Amino acid sequence: MKAVAYIEPMKVEVQDIEYPGLELKDGPGVNPANVGRQCPHGVILRCVSTNICGSDQHMVRGRTTAPPGLILGHEITGEVVEVGRDVEFIKQGDLVSVPFNIACGRCRMCKEGHTGVCLNVNPDRPGSAYGYVDMGGWQGGQAEYVMVPYADWNLLPFPDRDQAMEKILDLTMLSDIFPTGYHGCVSAGVGTGSTVYVAGAGPVGLAAAASAQLLGASVVIVGDMNADRLAHARSFGCETVDLTQSGALPDKIEQIVGEPVVDAAVDAVGFEARGHGKDAGEAPATVLNSIMEITRAAGKLGIPGLYVTGDPGGVDAAAQEGSLSIRIGLGWAKSHSFTTGQCPVMRYHRQLMNAILRDKVQIAKAVNATTISIDEAPQGYAQFDSGVAEKFVIDPHGLVKA
Amino acid sequence: MKAVAYIEPMKVEVQDIEYPGLELKDGPGVNPANVGRQCPHGVILRCVSTNICGSDQHMVRGRTTAPPGLILGHEITGEVVEVGRDVEFIKQGDLVSVPFNIACGRCRMCKEGHTGVCLNVNPDRPGSAYGYVDMGGWQGGQAEYVMVPYADWNLLPFPDRDQAMEKILDLTMLSDIFPTGYHGCVSAGVGTGSTVYVAGAGPVGLAAAASAQLLGASVVIVGDMNADRLAHARSFGCETVDLTQSGALPDKIEQIVGEPVVDAAVDAVGFEARGHGKDAGEAPATVLNSIMEITRAAGKLGIPGLYVTGDPGGVDAAAQEGSLSIRIGLGWAKSHSFTTGQCPVMRYHRQLMNAILRDKVQIAKAVNATTISIDEAPQGYAQFDSGVAEKFVIDPHGLVKA
Amino acid sequence: MKAVAYIEPMKVEVQDIEYPGLELKDGPGVNPANVGRQCPHGVILRCVSTNICGSDQHMVRGRTTAPPGLILGHEITGEVVEVGRDVEFIKQGDLVSVPFNIACGRCRMCKEGHTGVCLNVNPDRPGSAYGYVDMGGWQGGQAEYVMVPYADWNLLPFPDRDQAMEKILDLTMLSDIFPTGYHGCVSAGVGTGSTVYVAGAGPVGLAAAASAQLLGASVVIVGDMNADRLAHARSFGCETVDLTQSGALPDKIEQIVGEPVVDAAVDAVGFEARGHGKDAGEAPATVLNSIMEITRAAGKLGIPGLYVTGDPGGVDAAAQEGSLSIRIGLGWAKSHSFTTGQCPVMRYHRQLMNAILRDKVQIAKAVNATTISIDEAPQGYAQFDSGVAEKFVIDPHGLVKA
Amino acid sequence: MKAVAYIEPMKVEVQDIEYPGLELKDGPGVNPANVGRQCPHGVILRCVSTNICGSDQHMVRGRTTAPPGLILGHEITGEVVEVGRDVEFIKQGDLVSVPFNIACGRCRMCKEGHTGVCLNVNPDRPGSAYGYVDMGGWQGGQAEYVMVPYADWNLLPFPDRDQAMEKILDLTMLSDIFPTGYHGCVSAGVGTGSTVYVAGAGPVGLAAAASAQLLGASVVIVGDMNADRLAHARSFGCETVDLTQSGALPDKIEQIVGEPVVDAAVDAVGFEARGHGKDAGEAPATVLNSIMEITRAAGKLGIPGLYVTGDPGGVDAAAQEGSLSIRIGLGWAKSHSFTTGQCPVMRYHRQLMNAILRDKVQIAKAVNATTISIDEAPQGYAQFDSGVAEKFVIDPHGLVKA
Repeated sequence: MKAVAYIEPMKVEVQDIEYPGLELKDGPGVNPANVGRQCPHGVILRCVSTNICGSDQHMVRGRTTAPPGLILGHEITGEVVEVGRDVEFIKQGDLVSVPFNIACGRCRMCKEGHTGVCLNVNPDRPGSAYGYVDMGGWQGGQAEYVMVPYADWNLLPFPDRDQAMEKILDLTMLSDIFPTGYHGCVSAGVGTGSTVYVAGAGPVGLAAAASAQLLGASVVIVGDMNADRLAHARSFGCETVDLTQSGALPDKIEQIVGEPVVDAAVDAVGFEARGHGKDAGEAPATVLNSIMEITRAAGKLGIPGLYVTGDPGGVDAAAQEGSLSIRIGLGWAKSHSFTTGQCPVMRYHRQLMNAILRDKVQIAKAVNATTISIDEAPQGYAQFDSGVAEKFVIDPHGLVKA
Repeated sequence: MKAVAYIEPMKVEVQDIEYPGLELKDGPGVNPANVGRQCPHGVILRCVSTNICGSDQHMVRGRTTAPPGLILGHEITGEVVEVGRDVEFIKQGDLVSVPFNIACGRCRMCKEGHTGVCLNVNPDRPGSAYGYVDMGGWQGGQAEYVMVPYADWNLLPFPDRDQAMEKILDLTMLSDIFPTGYHGCVSAGVGTGSTVYVAGAGPVGLAAAASAQLLGASVVIVGDMNADRLAHARSFGCETVDLTQSGALPDKIEQIVGEPVVDAAVDAVGFEARGHGKDAGEAPATVLNSIMEITRAAGKLGIPGLYVTGDPGGVDAAAQEGSLSIRIGLGWAKSHSFTTGQCPVMRYHRQLMNAILRDKVQIAKAVNATTISIDEAPQGYAQFDSGVAEKFVIDPHGLVKA
Repeated sequence: MKAVAYIEPMKVEVQDIEYPGLELKDGPGVNPANVGRQCPHGVILRCVSTNICGSDQHMVRGRTTAPPGLILGHEITGEVVEVGRDVEFIKQGDLVSVPFNIACGRCRMCKEGHTGVCLNVNPDRPGSAYGYVDMGGWQGGQAEYVMVPYADWNLLPFPDRDQAMEKILDLTMLSDIFPTGYHGCVSAGVGTGSTVYVAGAGPVGLAAAASAQLLGASVVIVGDMNADRLAHARSFGCETVDLTQSGALPDKIEQIVGEPVVDAAVDAVGFEARGHGKDAGEAPATVLNSIMEITRAAGKLGIPGLYVTGDPGGVDAAAQEGSLSIRIGLGWAKSHSFTTGQCPVMRYHRQLMNAILRDKVQIAKAVNATTISIDEAPQGYAQFDSGVAEKFVIDPHGLVKA
Repeated sequence: MKAVAYIEPMKVEVQDIEYPGLELKDGPGVNPANVGRQCPHGVILRCVSTNICGSDQHMVRGRTTAPPGLILGHEITGEVVEVGRDVEFIKQGDLVSVPFNIACGRCRMCKEGHTGVCLNVNPDRPGSAYGYVDMGGWQGGQAEYVMVPYADWNLLPFPDRDQAMEKILDLTMLSDIFPTGYHGCVSAGVGTGSTVYVAGAGPVGLAAAASAQLLGASVVIVGDMNADRLAHARSFGCETVDLTQSGALPDKIEQIVGEPVVDAAVDAVGFEARGHGKDAGEAPATVLNSIMEITRAAGKLGIPGLYVTGDPGGVDAAAQEGSLSIRIGLGWAKSHSFTTGQCPVMRYHRQLMNAILRDKVQIAKAVNATTISIDEAPQGYAQFDSGVAEKFVIDPHGLVKA
């Protein structure tokens, strides 16, 4: 079957690989302790839609230690075609959303709702994801088929197949980006009437902006340096700040909301942040420091943007081990709190599915979902890297277009 | 009347100053916008007990821009001797605890319970305190008398005067240190059965440790480099880690709790942190980075230890403006959250008072309260700076000893 | 000045009464302990809009012990025309919303955010309201002018007067009905994607329905026996259930959401509930029992609808003292939780104001606000009692229409 | 093997029944839809300790429709002797606590932490328990061996076997009574410094009282009519109220805490409540109504005491279907909230285990655990019914005494 593999910095290709089984087999990036792991609790999915994510880009840009041949993809929606013997409630034929965090449903973290840091799926550290470096080696889902372990726990079946296929470009965002943006907002305390700043107009930022609207925010401001993405943010009612333009961020905020601070801020950028201004280079603490500046006292900062423990391309030795110069004194003076980490998708995906199915949110439009075939995946990666205002949805079986 | 004034680095002295009125008069460190502010909502207190705080030490060590002549003291317990015309519920003769955060009880922050960042008491920024640099200029309470504004809102009267005087060394801790330690624990998610690490065995650390016990923690570990303070922590049931000894912190944690992580951690040190090891110098991000290392995934970090926006004595230019090299990548990988800022004392003081009055906690013992006269204040500061395991309580009128 | 007085069951009239001062004077329904209470912390408002409330109807229908001459009205929006000496932040000329709960801002309940049960304003019991029986005797606001005590604490000033006057029919709902409906939803756990049942299509029910939409509910179902009010609910996107029609409620719910239960339910009816079916008489526990039946396991029930401790018109002796036959066994089996009581308006009004000012909600439309002059108040009461789908807003000075 | 069976009202006997397998076989009280259910996710436990519960008494007293031959027992602690093929993390030899609520770990309720209302284990309604009428028919654990389904999800293994056996009389309370009492307190908002009233001095009431102490309550008052049980409550520091004595409950509360109300109240009695006073008969709403009376405004009521949907022995027709005359008007006036239902044990048992293992609580002493052999079970039931102040722990294999 076809699958999208990382080859080397700035290069992915479509490979022909073996059809998956209910076992975690050896391969590029598989943790030795996971090799041969039996998954009678798993299912095989025919991938109906599988999106390219900004965090895939970190690997493709060579900012991680991902090995050649790693099959990519952790944003997966699919149809169940084979069911393991220990699967009791998920049925063949179910159309399901797969949370990008792989979780066992049996450890303390899972029981407490922290599925982003499951203790039993990654021998290296808590937490895992499909098709990602240092995450235990679960094969990615940018492929025709994929194995999902602990299926009864992990999967969210859609209530009606036909209804779901009609909204599949919205529902495909449930696997990661929509809950991730929403989690950023929830962590930041966004609610009815909030004024919100979202740093970054990439897909997660746009999903955060749409989430803030769904949560009742009165004003949602998106900041970025990419004019196209900012224009897209404005297309669904966001205010925007162009960070390439001169002028201090608090002043720009004040022009929009009447005071130089917002109630809540979301970092949808992460460790590849650049400084503000026209020709600013990478300055990885820029977003964290600027959102402290423009968030009101006692505000909360939601940080779904990825920060890593090792970054071979970091701007300096400190950044290469994930240490950034953060103005913690400012945050402390303002009694800020900070929430980091992977979004535990399961905490949110059912509610967001219901909002999609009843037309309460247009998430595909907000992130500008664009369908491509699996053969077009390499171009999709390239275009995404160029900064187009699109979220690429791979359609391995031509089901979405139909 | 007598009052304790900051003179210059490492020097405080007892001065004779004017008796306070219900007006904020000009003086060292008073914000011009606050000069002449009328306080018909205030009261005058006879100070019954008024403690020296670790955050006073930052000023006395010359790590701030505090001006000479600033009257110190924000940990105040007293008797109401004069009542402003607009005070309705506080009565003359009431024995009261004063939260160190000055709050108006009328702004959005106060209404939402964020009394640490009141918008109406400090012209410079949200939040204020008595006797502190850059906090608007409210005169400190290490004095015979002090004015407390917005008395109906701020003050906590003790239900019975005689009962209170019997426990005054415990109750005096309600103005700051006990709620502050408790807030650190609450922010860190400490509850029944938690394993907890408290960084720092100074008074706030010991108060945090006692708070963790009160909250039902199963194990409380205190880390410090001061042998006396660690011994004191052990005296009320804490485990301890001596950070001058070689060996990695996670290993030491594992020896105590059976795994290299705890459920919750509290930073009771702040920006004057030193590196670990015998002769370590100042390394201000040490505590933040080490508690990320030893806190489990999905854990919370309570950060009552003070971080500042400006530190003339900082180890480098970044530290001088409050920017520290924080290993945010590690925290993110573990889905940590971080809560900073002044403790909003009012959120906790009533409950903690009830726990004291019913003998559920021995906070004076935990922090080793030691009573001194106001004339002994300079020696108290010096001794405290030398690292003795004592919390000094100034008794300006000889009421505590009686 | 003119004011609306309760005279006897089914009769109110416009009287000419004395202009208010900053003192609680004696009068019909004033608690003796409150007579002569000085309010230097108060302001005098020119009433810009003041709404008739369903809870006023309980008095007017003779279901309470309200005395003749009681001046009605607790839903007040006005302009500050006189300021007491202890008022520091509210200024003359401010256009403000008045929470219907009178609160001191200085007691334990207020400090904890429970302004609906303030301890210092009603000598009889915690909690108070303007113009209401057994609430201490604060004069009602269906008048040209009204005195509001503890103005710095209670009042919400609108940021811009002209902008506010343009949306005054929406903003007038902030004093009670909108926060009350919203509180019902919040108490019931309504959030993104929830399915919600609101019992009652009177103004509070419609406000709850609009609130549920604002909170992101996927489906909002309103049940009532009044065809006009149900039609109005449908006008802004609600589903409806006509309770005069035969058929079990769970079946009707199932037809709408696909299962016989909803995630959350709100009782916007209270103690004057009638049984279901065409000619059903008063059956005061009907709503409580039916919402237990149609709320899913682990669901929450928000109960803003009023239940009273004494009801002279109750259907039996038990009901007359507020005891109803509640199927608690059913609720227990489903692990339900129940939240009752006055909405603490201050907890919500600022956020809801921001949502109104930024056009995120159309609350005046949802409740069908209809402006009348103060002279038309008696007809307004009569029409409201007849069950029209309108919310009457009294405009004492002709400012709204202008 | 031996097991304790319900025979008829006031009669249980020890029977010899078949050793369990990993299948739910037919038998007394087994729901037809559950017959033959395969449990490869289950384990067989050797029961180390298995307690008699107050809710077993409801069956034994004939207050339910439990069929003859029903094997009793839902408070189970045991050693894993056989492991189903789909169990991955629980191992043979593990010593484990079994939450009394049976839960699948795969449905929406389980994912949200509501394991008391799991959707997949009881064909009749959400929620199940071992050995209980109308709960699907899972065989009880007052037996030598018992099957536990979904073992990876349900079971809590103790970290060290020898350590656990030393504290087994404490740890055996983790299966139900300790978390249930604790849940009552948490639902009631008990925290540091709270004043708490616990209605009922049976084992759940005593466990609630011990939990309130663990949570930091300043005063814990237990009310009952059984002098022995009240004496036992006093033995570990509770205040008590003897409800057979004349005098109003608020007055008695005032004598203890200085005001006629407490901060929080727990109903540890349920539907078999009796009226207050010396010779009071059954009056099932007594506890609910009296705790509303003595809980302060804005207080919360935790209701772990069982209320049922059908009670053949109810005092009247309404009570027989679980409808009680509740003074909801009073609760509403005080803005009370009410939390009912089975305790979701999994939410609390790990933390409570840690508190036990580190000697932070003496729960066996608090409930007066008394070990009996399985052959003594009938006498245990009889004695418990007579009102002795003991919690009976059946020790089927003589392991506890050893």
